[in-house]
Amino acid sequence: MKASRFFIGTLKEAPADAEIVSHQLMVRAGMIRRVAGGIYDYMPMGLRSIRKVEKIVREEMERAGAIELLMPAVQPAEFWQESGRWAKYGPELLRLKDRHDRDFVIGPTHEEVITDIARREIKSYRQMPINFYQIQTKFRDEIRPRFGVMRGREFIMKDAYSFDKDVDGLKITYQKMYDAYSAVFNRMGLTFRAVAADNGSIGGTGSHEFQVIADTGEDEIVYCPTSDYAANIEAAEAPALIATRGAATQALTKTPTPGKAKCEDVAELLGIPLETTIKSVVMAVDAAEGPTKIVLLLVRGDHSINEVKVTKLAGLGDARMATEHEIIATFGTPPGYLGPIGTKQPVTVIADLTVANMADFVVGANEAGHHITGVNWGRDLPEPDQVADIREVVAGDASPDGKGVLEICRGIEVGQVFQLGTKYSEAMNATYLDESGKPQPMVMGCYGIGVTRVLGAAIEQNYDARGIIWPEAIAPFEVVVCPMGYDRSESVRAEADRIYGELVAAGIDVILDDRGERPGVMFADWELIGVPHRLVIGDRGLKESKVEYQGRRDTEATLLPVGEAVAHVASRVNAALGR
Amino acid sequence: MKASRFFIGTLKEAPADAEIVSHQLMVRAGMIRRVAGGIYDYMPMGLRSIRKVEKIVREEMERAGAIELLMPAVQPAEFWQESGRWAKYGPELLRLKDRHDRDFVIGPTHEEVITDIARREIKSYRQMPINFYQIQTKFRDEIRPRFGVMRGREFIMKDAYSFDKDVDGLKITYQKMYDAYSAVFNRMGLTFRAVAADNGSIGGTGSHEFQVIADTGEDEIVYCPTSDYAANIEAAEAPALIATRGAATQALTKTPTPGKAKCEDVAELLGIPLETTIKSVVMAVDAAEGPTKIVLLLVRGDHSINEVKVTKLAGLGDARMATEHEIIATFGTPPGYLGPIGTKQPVTVIADLTVANMADFVVGANEAGHHITGVNWGRDLPEPDQVADIREVVAGDASPDGKGVLEICRGIEVGQVFQLGTKYSEAMNATYLDESGKPQPMVMGCYGIGVTRVLGAAIEQNYDARGIIWPEAIAPFEVVVCPMGYDRSESVRAEADRIYGELVAAGIDVILDDRGERPGVMFADWELIGVPHRLVIGDRGLKESKVEYQGRRDTEATLLPVGEAVAHVASRVNAALGR
Repeated sequence: MKASRFFIGTLKEAPADAEIVSHQLMVRAGMIRRVAGGIYDYMPMGLRSIRKVEKIVREEMERAGAIELLMPAVQPAEFWQESGRWAKYGPELLRLKDRHDRDFVIGPTHEEVITDIARREIKSYRQMPINFYQIQTKFRDEIRPRFGVMRGREFIMKDAYSFDKDVDGLKITYQKMYDAYSAVFNRMGLTFRAVAADNGSIGGTGSHEFQVIADTGEDEIVYCPTSDYAANIEAAEAPALIATRGAATQALTKTPTPGKAKCEDVAELLGIPLETTIKSVVMAVDAAEGPTKIVLLLVRGDHSINEVKVTKLAGLGDARMATEHEIIATFGTPPGYLGPIGTKQPVTVIADLTVANMADFVVGANEAGHHITGVNWGRDLPEPDQVADIREVVAGDASPDGKGVLEICRGIEVGQVFQLGTKYSEAMNATYLDESGKPQPMVMGCYGIGVTRVLGAAIEQNYDARGIIWPEAIAPFEVVVCPMGYDRSESVRAEADRIYGELVAAGIDVILDDRGERPGVMFADWELIGVPHRLVIGDRGLKESKVEYQGRRDTEATLLPVGEAVAHVASRVNAALGR
Repeated sequence: MKASRFFIGTLKEAPADAEIVSHQLMVRAGMIRRVAGGIYDYMPMGLRSIRKVEKIVREEMERAGAIELLMPAVQPAEFWQESGRWAKYGPELLRLKDRHDRDFVIGPTHEEVITDIARREIKSYRQMPINFYQIQTKFRDEIRPRFGVMRGREFIMKDAYSFDKDVDGLKITYQKMYDAYSAVFNRMGLTFRAVAADNGSIGGTGSHEFQVIADTGEDEIVYCPTSDYAANIEAAEAPALIATRGAATQALTKTPTPGKAKCEDVAELLGIPLETTIKSVVMAVDAAEGPTKIVLLLVRGDHSINEVKVTKLAGLGDARMATEHEIIATFGTPPGYLGPIGTKQPVTVIADLTVANMADFVVGANEAGHHITGVNWGRDLPEPDQVADIREVVAGDASPDGKGVLEICRGIEVGQVFQLGTKYSEAMNATYLDESGKPQPMVMGCYGIGVTRVLGAAIEQNYDARGIIWPEAIAPFEVVVCPMGYDRSESVRAEADRIYGELVAAGIDVILDDRGERPGVMFADWELIGVPHRLVIGDRGLKESKVEYQGRRDTEATLLPVGEAVAHVASRVNAALGR
């Protein structure tokens, strides 16, 4: 490509609404432009990277045996009513009516449409396993779209859906897709981790997220540096930190702790370790009939409740935070000094694994400005109604696989694989005839990659003060040739044209900056855009038959004999791309 | 591709709602499946052809210097309000509200969004000409979607938008795109014609449609077989069929014509040539202030009014058919016996070029059951207020270029190029600084290709009783290898695998039907799907070292020496593709 036949729209300033670096750099590099909140034009520079992401995804999907199709963006409401998501999906689902007043949605995902295809097309166990994928525009009406392509409303996604005759088959397909995803992100040159994940609202029985490691990531990832264990913090198992409960040694004592509503402050006031205090969190579960159930959750003072884990417990699927009104009615006091002893109304007490083994601990007294110390299970209050893992993992916890100690880092989710099971096939009656001629629900998996989001994540992981630093595989161009005085010097022009032509012939994705800009402007543009390799051709160098090479991460340029430049750059690019 | 790793969804029966052959065949061949009215799944077989269309379009756009980007499907209403189309566009524009109750549309076209890009990115005449294109999903909420991909609601389109500093520049860009479109449809192997077109509601100053010739086409195309002239019937110039007006020879006579409201019936009753009668059509133009203007349009009895031409006349842009109520108020009689003589209220009379030169003609008497014969301009009524070309061309009319006689055929519009001018740039204030530093509106063109529609058009042009006959360039596969007994005969399997492998290595897009189906099923499937070349490998042939070749249009198979099969098929495919 020659720059004169392309569109380069670099900007000096980032827009005011760009809060994170990838958003700022994508706008400044002319890759995206805002159309409305969370809706972007993908400019020519950005689209080139999107196409490279799509190509890698497509190749690995094909290799894994998935078959491409394309489902519509606009979907009839009937499908969503059948699956039950019409009622369950919140306002992120963009609903609309056509001219005949029929309800439609702009699909944020395509489980319903693919299940409709499967129930029409798949009749027999002989047709499975089968795995369909598409690369397509989706819409999710985020309440506060932000972070550019990282949390947009309209975005491009690859979504795949597999159909197996049983769970064993699903597990094999799932592993194939897991491997394909690993290949995809490896080929893109990203540092990532596949982490065990919560299934979220999509439902099902097993899931992994593919997280690009970046300090600015929205997700917390728990991993064990000395083993394979990795999980989203929402899903990471937290161990009991106390193996067996100690004997009671202190007497139960009510102590004034005025103005000390937090465990940290109570511990400081009383001069005791934070680890002897217990934090009380109150949730409520509304019943279809009868009164709302109030649940008291107890975690150690230095721990946090993991709400996702709580809502996985039996009967707590729809648990919500209790209101102040409910708390006062149950505990006789507002939040701040709550505890399991002497509540006004009976409550269900759920203790974290660690809390269940504590002795001589401190809890709120259910009386403003007071805590109780020296509390012991059995002696001062009944054993907890339930003991469960309800806290968030912290760095230093033992890895659940017993192979080390957990650490925590941040990540950006770019892909997720799910074992869906029969949630959709049962709801939408997608059955096949098994070997004995009996109808059975198909066993489904679904697998997503945020194509546009990958760009943002790649930048969050790879940038410096001058701009983006693209991995070769998803850079808009692999190499830029910058002639100094293309419009003035015939020898520079001839050499630049020759080198450009040879790079093209070598299969390198190269752009020749023939705009005639000053070197400062050229260099700043291409460093901002983040092209990983640069060749500078100038009269001074050519006098000594040299050209300048600089990798985007190099601190300075290297002089190369003019005859070796093409081979040098091509071999670097090819090495980076593993070809 | 091996069939066992692909999805083939052929059907014996076409669905009841499929009225035309391309719709029937695309469903039966497993290329599309209906999701809702005018909304389809593009199944794997169909998507392959779509991708080939897209690839050809993309290559020719790049060659013509257009730059690819991607604009959003969901567009803010503000843009459409700025351009004025929010009010003007009918219910085909799918409007919706987001969760914050802001208005959006799902774009049926992207003039507004691209003009917004241009006004932000293009500052100087130095940045032009520039031409952006995208390939993208569009939505047009047709009141009665039908004909499969030919008149769907959600469809894929390539749309390009050019920006020039002046009309001369636009004309050069327009010609480039015209040539690129010709190249696109030639490469696709379609028989088509570029025809002069009406600009429609999009506005502007010049346009051509690219029409795939097919008897089932919705459009009528007028062309001159002995010259280059071709136009959509809406836009084709109709000549005056009478060079100079003859002298009056008959007396004005009112004649009873009871129950003969049509010119044909009047001519038959009176025993006169149809060419001596005149047809009256009444239209109305509502004024912003004052009364509605009633216009009487006169064409010869054997001609038809061309409403598009009428609305191009000065002051008639918003003309509509008059209501019965308006007609009675103006003419004193209901439709059927209307004419220019003795109206109750004055009307504006517009005569077709031919009508203006007629003498001794017949018109309605403005009295039920009566006509007037022997009518002559000047003598019996004033000269027409306006003389203009307002009729539809008929076969046999002289070509406007004077080089022959016009014929009429039917076509399917698959592309259109427009000279938009400054309609959008003025409405949306998209200006650039010219050489003297003065702001000027950019001069725009727009250029569309209906990517999914091309498939339907190609099929309407290329099918037989057995199914589709794809041109090689857009066939889902170029070649199918059909082994007879792939699962039973080791020699068949080995030879089929070898031939398949060699075709793949030769760059041929081949599918190996390794499903183990019976020959009858295999052949019927691939003839229905329309793969243009077939190789059949069976034990009987192999005994004599032969395989069977059959082109999709061939009536019977040819035996080829097994060692020559690959070269033979590859050379046929390559010849068809011009490579």
